[in-house]
Amino acid sequence: MPLLIKNGEIVTAESRYRADLYAEGETITRIATHIDDVPPGTEIIDATGKLVFPGFIDPHVHIYLPFMATFAKDTHETASIAALVGGTTTYIEMCCPSRTEDTLAGYELWKSRAAGNSACDYAFHMAVTRWDEQTEKQLREIVADGTASFKIFLSYKNFFGVDDAEMFHTLKLAAELGVITTAHCENAELVAQLQQELLAAGKTGPEWHEPSRPTGVEAEGTGRFATFLKHTGATGYVVHLSCAAALDAALAARRQGVPLHIESVAPHFLLDKTYAEREGVEGMKHVMSPPLREKPNQDALWTALGAGFIDTVGTDHCPFDLEQKRLGEGNFTHIPNGIPGIEERVNLMYTYGVKRGRMDLHRFVDALSTRPAQLFGLAPRKGTIAVGSDADIVVYDPDYRGTLSAKTQHTNNDYNGFEGFAIEGRPSVVTVRGKVQVRDGQFTGERGRGQLLRRKPQYFTQQAKDAHAG
Amino acid sequence: MPLLIKNGEIVTAESRYRADLYAEGETITRIATHIDDVPPGTEIIDATGKLVFPGFIDPHVHIYLPFMATFAKDTHETASIAALVGGTTTYIEMCCPSRTEDTLAGYELWKSRAAGNSACDYAFHMAVTRWDEQTEKQLREIVADGTASFKIFLSYKNFFGVDDAEMFHTLKLAAELGVITTAHCENAELVAQLQQELLAAGKTGPEWHEPSRPTGVEAEGTGRFATFLKHTGATGYVVHLSCAAALDAALAARRQGVPLHIESVAPHFLLDKTYAEREGVEGMKHVMSPPLREKPNQDALWTALGAGFIDTVGTDHCPFDLEQKRLGEGNFTHIPNGIPGIEERVNLMYTYGVKRGRMDLHRFVDALSTRPAQLFGLAPRKGTIAVGSDADIVVYDPDYRGTLSAKTQHTNNDYNGFEGFAIEGRPSVVTVRGKVQVRDGQFTGERGRGQLLRRKPQYFTQQAKDAHAG
Amino acid sequence: MPLLIKNGEIVTAESRYRADLYAEGETITRIATHIDDVPPGTEIIDATGKLVFPGFIDPHVHIYLPFMATFAKDTHETASIAALVGGTTTYIEMCCPSRTEDTLAGYELWKSRAAGNSACDYAFHMAVTRWDEQTEKQLREIVADGTASFKIFLSYKNFFGVDDAEMFHTLKLAAELGVITTAHCENAELVAQLQQELLAAGKTGPEWHEPSRPTGVEAEGTGRFATFLKHTGATGYVVHLSCAAALDAALAARRQGVPLHIESVAPHFLLDKTYAEREGVEGMKHVMSPPLREKPNQDALWTALGAGFIDTVGTDHCPFDLEQKRLGEGNFTHIPNGIPGIEERVNLMYTYGVKRGRMDLHRFVDALSTRPAQLFGLAPRKGTIAVGSDADIVVYDPDYRGTLSAKTQHTNNDYNGFEGFAIEGRPSVVTVRGKVQVRDGQFTGERGRGQLLRRKPQYFTQQAKDAHAG
Amino acid sequence: MPLLIKNGEIVTAESRYRADLYAEGETITRIATHIDDVPPGTEIIDATGKLVFPGFIDPHVHIYLPFMATFAKDTHETASIAALVGGTTTYIEMCCPSRTEDTLAGYELWKSRAAGNSACDYAFHMAVTRWDEQTEKQLREIVADGTASFKIFLSYKNFFGVDDAEMFHTLKLAAELGVITTAHCENAELVAQLQQELLAAGKTGPEWHEPSRPTGVEAEGTGRFATFLKHTGATGYVVHLSCAAALDAALAARRQGVPLHIESVAPHFLLDKTYAEREGVEGMKHVMSPPLREKPNQDALWTALGAGFIDTVGTDHCPFDLEQKRLGEGNFTHIPNGIPGIEERVNLMYTYGVKRGRMDLHRFVDALSTRPAQLFGLAPRKGTIAVGSDADIVVYDPDYRGTLSAKTQHTNNDYNGFEGFAIEGRPSVVTVRGKVQVRDGQFTGERGRGQLLRRKPQYFTQQAKDAHAG
Repeated sequence: MPLLIKNGEIVTAESRYRADLYAEGETITRIATHIDDVPPGTEIIDATGKLVFPGFIDPHVHIYLPFMATFAKDTHETASIAALVGGTTTYIEMCCPSRTEDTLAGYELWKSRAAGNSACDYAFHMAVTRWDEQTEKQLREIVADGTASFKIFLSYKNFFGVDDAEMFHTLKLAAELGVITTAHCENAELVAQLQQELLAAGKTGPEWHEPSRPTGVEAEGTGRFATFLKHTGATGYVVHLSCAAALDAALAARRQGVPLHIESVAPHFLLDKTYAEREGVEGMKHVMSPPLREKPNQDALWTALGAGFIDTVGTDHCPFDLEQKRLGEGNFTHIPNGIPGIEERVNLMYTYGVKRGRMDLHRFVDALSTRPAQLFGLAPRKGTIAVGSDADIVVYDPDYRGTLSAKTQHTNNDYNGFEGFAIEGRPSVVTVRGKVQVRDGQFTGERGRGQLLRRKPQYFTQQAKDAHAG
Repeated sequence: MPLLIKNGEIVTAESRYRADLYAEGETITRIATHIDDVPPGTEIIDATGKLVFPGFIDPHVHIYLPFMATFAKDTHETASIAALVGGTTTYIEMCCPSRTEDTLAGYELWKSRAAGNSACDYAFHMAVTRWDEQTEKQLREIVADGTASFKIFLSYKNFFGVDDAEMFHTLKLAAELGVITTAHCENAELVAQLQQELLAAGKTGPEWHEPSRPTGVEAEGTGRFATFLKHTGATGYVVHLSCAAALDAALAARRQGVPLHIESVAPHFLLDKTYAEREGVEGMKHVMSPPLREKPNQDALWTALGAGFIDTVGTDHCPFDLEQKRLGEGNFTHIPNGIPGIEERVNLMYTYGVKRGRMDLHRFVDALSTRPAQLFGLAPRKGTIAVGSDADIVVYDPDYRGTLSAKTQHTNNDYNGFEGFAIEGRPSVVTVRGKVQVRDGQFTGERGRGQLLRRKPQYFTQQAKDAHAG
Repeated sequence: MPLLIKNGEIVTAESRYRADLYAEGETITRIATHIDDVPPGTEIIDATGKLVFPGFIDPHVHIYLPFMATFAKDTHETASIAALVGGTTTYIEMCCPSRTEDTLAGYELWKSRAAGNSACDYAFHMAVTRWDEQTEKQLREIVADGTASFKIFLSYKNFFGVDDAEMFHTLKLAAELGVITTAHCENAELVAQLQQELLAAGKTGPEWHEPSRPTGVEAEGTGRFATFLKHTGATGYVVHLSCAAALDAALAARRQGVPLHIESVAPHFLLDKTYAEREGVEGMKHVMSPPLREKPNQDALWTALGAGFIDTVGTDHCPFDLEQKRLGEGNFTHIPNGIPGIEERVNLMYTYGVKRGRMDLHRFVDALSTRPAQLFGLAPRKGTIAVGSDADIVVYDPDYRGTLSAKTQHTNNDYNGFEGFAIEGRPSVVTVRGKVQVRDGQFTGERGRGQLLRRKPQYFTQQAKDAHAG
Repeated sequence: MPLLIKNGEIVTAESRYRADLYAEGETITRIATHIDDVPPGTEIIDATGKLVFPGFIDPHVHIYLPFMATFAKDTHETASIAALVGGTTTYIEMCCPSRTEDTLAGYELWKSRAAGNSACDYAFHMAVTRWDEQTEKQLREIVADGTASFKIFLSYKNFFGVDDAEMFHTLKLAAELGVITTAHCENAELVAQLQQELLAAGKTGPEWHEPSRPTGVEAEGTGRFATFLKHTGATGYVVHLSCAAALDAALAARRQGVPLHIESVAPHFLLDKTYAEREGVEGMKHVMSPPLREKPNQDALWTALGAGFIDTVGTDHCPFDLEQKRLGEGNFTHIPNGIPGIEERVNLMYTYGVKRGRMDLHRFVDALSTRPAQLFGLAPRKGTIAVGSDADIVVYDPDYRGTLSAKTQHTNNDYNGFEGFAIEGRPSVVTVRGKVQVRDGQFTGERGRGQLLRRKPQYFTQQAKDAHAG
């Protein structure tokens, strides 16, 4: 069924104009001042007074995630519906087998969980959590299969974490294959030692989570990652950068020519460490890593986002419910990490970013849709409104007013990390490849419509390009 | 006559896709996979194998410029034709009356010179070179007339230059009116003193021009301008940033939240100070301010451009011929400053930027077209290819190979600052508001087609916004 | 009368040892494990349990200071006694004629006020507040007279302030003469404009003094001064650096090879801006420039002092009484600037620096005595305990406990800026050139003993050295 | 035999004065204007026209060093004589058992090699190359034995190197014991990987040594070490800092309050990487780690040294002869690392530092004698000329002119890394605890006079101090 969106104001990362938009099949085929000559049966959306955005992309989520004999709460069905209701039409999931698991088996497992279950499109960052000949071979297959980005953890020693040698080998392979590597940058050892010190001193509550991974630990990891990028020729992307110290490390590297991109996630813009200092499980709700920080870091992040120094905004979505959070009672290192946000990101950043004057509307689209698409090989299919692109469209109502709450959310969890936050805007209509999936805050579409997005490597070094050409 | 561009690959700051493009009147009205239903008489361009860019914008040129009882060589006719042949469809000219002239009279004079003479569209940055009650009143009129950006010179004492008090008043007015202020950032006094020292020491040749305005002088000006922006609430734009030292000053300010944008110009990316050290008039050809620098600064500029730290690329186009340059024989401070580039910028940046892997194609369009349009209030009419935008289109041939030379240029000058530089690409067709003006390197269109672009202020502070709203 | 100090622990900038010390005439002639063979009539001080320091030097005070038809409260008699009681045996006074006064006449006037009236030795920094041929000539005479340091003000436009041209000429002369130039670094114009804005907005109380000269204004001045040093070859010294922003500007310059030294003054280490925000005259007491800052700047200063990044600690001593302070009622720009400290500096820095672990004992002696002596050409006569040096000795009692108060001070003023501050240490005995002047907090010596210290230039550039040699 | 040094000019880190100096036993007991009343048999040195320095201290040497079934060439006898001839009266040797050796056994072995064999005094830095309960216990014993400084290697994986956990434990112990930790800061893994890459690419000559450990590798290590210091409360000292990048990392940490001190070594000030790029064994002579760098780094080091940002100058003395160097033919990773310098340091730094105007005479004494003494717990016995200090005196002839050469050196090696360097100054007389050991370039004294210097910890954190006090 063709789709026509009329009378809206189309907003992309670089443009804003009134036009009608028409999609045949799953693709945008016409944009014009006025489109009236459409076949019968065309779904017609009147977007008068609305903003028409490209579907938003969350570059950093966890959905399937085994943890201590249990699992993060979302399925691909619940997470994708939450995403769509919130205006996100594509997510990139971290595929995270542990060090002890076979990489390819993990990849197949993660793919199997998502296949047929997601209501929106998706892709994977492939975590490299071990290194041996077999793993290297499997990674080549995985990239060939269309998963063209890696993830490494400098933290989580002995579980997900890689050591410097493994990081080096991963980045060399990434450079060879033209794959971008995303990295969680905290010094594993320092975190482990500080955790032991704090616990030994009887400091066991969630308020000690931040002091166990202070900003210097993140700045160190960021700087070390940048150094390894420089000397391997690989392109990098630091995930969930949370503080001014790490920002400075990343920007200094970029200024020197290191190809390092920066993501921050919604919680770090809006929640400070006092949230994790609340009593008991209230504090545990707000435990994630890197942790929520002192408030002045938020200003640094907003400034950097507005200036384009921070490339993208993700969520690190990872829902654990209160029962799971309570596993950390008496030992903050056992609190499952994560603050869900896949549903809230777009509305929060629109409200507290655009409406508060911290970034303009184009930067908003850029950071939440266009740059994720460009950086991760989804462009031009995703991330923009253009002829030939997938008709993933968010018709956005800037006049909506509401409040975030666990009571009304679609994420499968019994709390909302942003409980009580007012929002000033919401998607009216959300489409996935030409089909309406959400209307007025409710999922009304087709479950399982989502497809795995296969991506091509694009970060070849000149040397690699020459070799390919030669 | 309607215009149809078929089979090309449209490239914007954020997208790249194959589509046909149709303009009625002067405006793009349709973009679609295939457009065939056009009226008879439609001008049809086959763009197979070509890139279809939005018309490029040069945010920094001098055309009418009185100098020592003579004038810079270009007229608006010659300059606009040179611009168009080189793919630039809009330029912003510096309107520069001196301190002793009446501001409004200057503005009217500059406007009168351009009116009816430019083959492409244009706007002005209004130089503020004095400050008194009358001038302030006139500036308000000038902004109301649609010239919504100021220019100040921290250098050129007693001629164009403003002192700190005048800078403060200008920026306060700019903040109140929502106008962006562009600034030439060099310490006037230090330059004046160093010039005297060098001349007194018998150092009179063009090779002493750079030592008379070393990088520290520019970094100082940049930092001082940023400080004044911070304390006035104004938005700024540093023109022709030439070196790593000034870049660091600007980025530090931006990191701290100062709304400061950065322009560098074509010569500083491609020519180093050895050009100005050539014998006699050969050196004089390459005298501009800030001067050509030591080569390592070029790497810093390219890196920053690729990373988006530098917003825009202009030219500071300013043609003086060899006879005029020779006015500086025996005294480098008398060499008229300027290296022409309005015709060469696009091809040079495409060749030495995109083709050499220093920036991607989107950053190229962004820096040479989209950001200038956004920063200076020309968007969405200019700077992109979108429905509703002016049909200023560059159909670009990436397979063209040629060499820059004074022999073949359209700029009215007897030398070319980039003589002998190879280029790997050139516009095939250039349109201005729907009309073909250039084909295959030759101007074939309508002289005087260009219009003055009137722009609206857009940089209101929250305070000013509140005042407007209240 | 010879002097013997027995059984003390001598502490210099680099050494700590138990020895006896003997002075004949005015000079230290012997230091030995035990000295017993002294002539009859020798003054013998038993320093058992005491620290024996070189006399401290305050590199930055105002004593004679005309202000709005009145004068700062101290005479050289009162100030020098206050200094001595507090352990300071030499001060360097700012000789500050205004722009409208003749420089040499000012110098003679300042000299005449001090001559015969000071109980301790003293020198001058010669303020350069205007520039013309006559002034230049006079400055040469003044340097030849033994006043081998200049002072410039980048602030105080139209009164003390120099513009960039005057700064350049001053620094060139300084470089030629081998003289160090001290500078008050705040942007004059920005301060003037912000003052007008605040007053116009009805913000007239002392709490608006700091916002009228924010940290950026000082950082700008510091950076500009450094740039001018770099391009003139002069050596500089920034006085009363008050904040992290200016510190970073100064250190960046020093890292790049600019010979720039840094002084901070006692108030900025110990008082924050809330002092100036107190009601009425309580706030006015704490108005000085640069102003008292937000508290985190204090940490930055202490860290930099401990690390040796800050060279010296002075006071900017300048006593105005409450009646004078009240001249600024209803207009903070009329509050006479200054917080007295000549008497308190040593004890405060010992207590809050050394005893609190922020710097070691050697750094304390270095910053308050040795480096001022070295930087300003007083070494080796002053600033150390060594054979041949003047016998300016402070026998210090680290067991003394007391509280600072206007009630007990010797400075001629009716308030104490550090009222109520506990001190943990005090001079027991203070000598000037071999003569005991202070015992147990009371002046017991000879008024008018102080001499003008004539100093030799020592900052010749290599170029100047070569010229001298040639 | 008492010692009297007459008519010289005594120069310390903070003072310069003409005085006579007398030592009884091994200690300076009198300094006075004139000393004549000495007992018969007193050794009298006439220092007219000479500078009288405190004995210099080399804080970083290797003497006993097993390597691939052979040993570094010096014995404590040859090294100490070389040191003395060059004006160094105390050295601190790295005691470096490998990871596979027992720490205490290593310590005893190193001590036994030195005992009775050194002609000058010495101490050890104790390398921590492994970590377990037994090692920790032994380290406590070693500190109690008077060896109050540790050394760790972030490089040399699997041999000397510690991983992050071991670094953390070492620093925690150091903080508890009040011991300073010196560190070789290069990223072990990155070096190892780059070495393998280069060798695999057939890049096997000594010119590839620098590219295998580029400046970024050192900056990373320096920054990581600083981060660990910050989070353990330990005090650190980075050895042989070689480049601007690492300097910036260290200074940034220090600016933020991390107690990190900086040593650079003579080769990095004077030799650049072109030395290691010479053909064959000529290049191998100049292989050390961190490697000799690009020349502009030398300016950065000199500037930082002059400004006091670099604390000390050592040598990393480590003599391997040409036969040993040739073990690395065909594989630069097998070249034994080291450039000897114990004999040359003082004369080189005097000539190329003081005489060339890059630092003043006090900074020279400070960096080569006083600060090493202070930082490593040797003050006030060593590092100064003061009553009660050891009579380690260098009577220095500033009029001597000579040339460094393997032909005339005392170091036991067949080449000199500074062959052909002119020197402008040399010790005339060198004493160790009151006894003349060197006259006019020749050892004339008592072999085996040297003693092990036992030192007390002095870097207790406030927390540790409180615990001690409590």
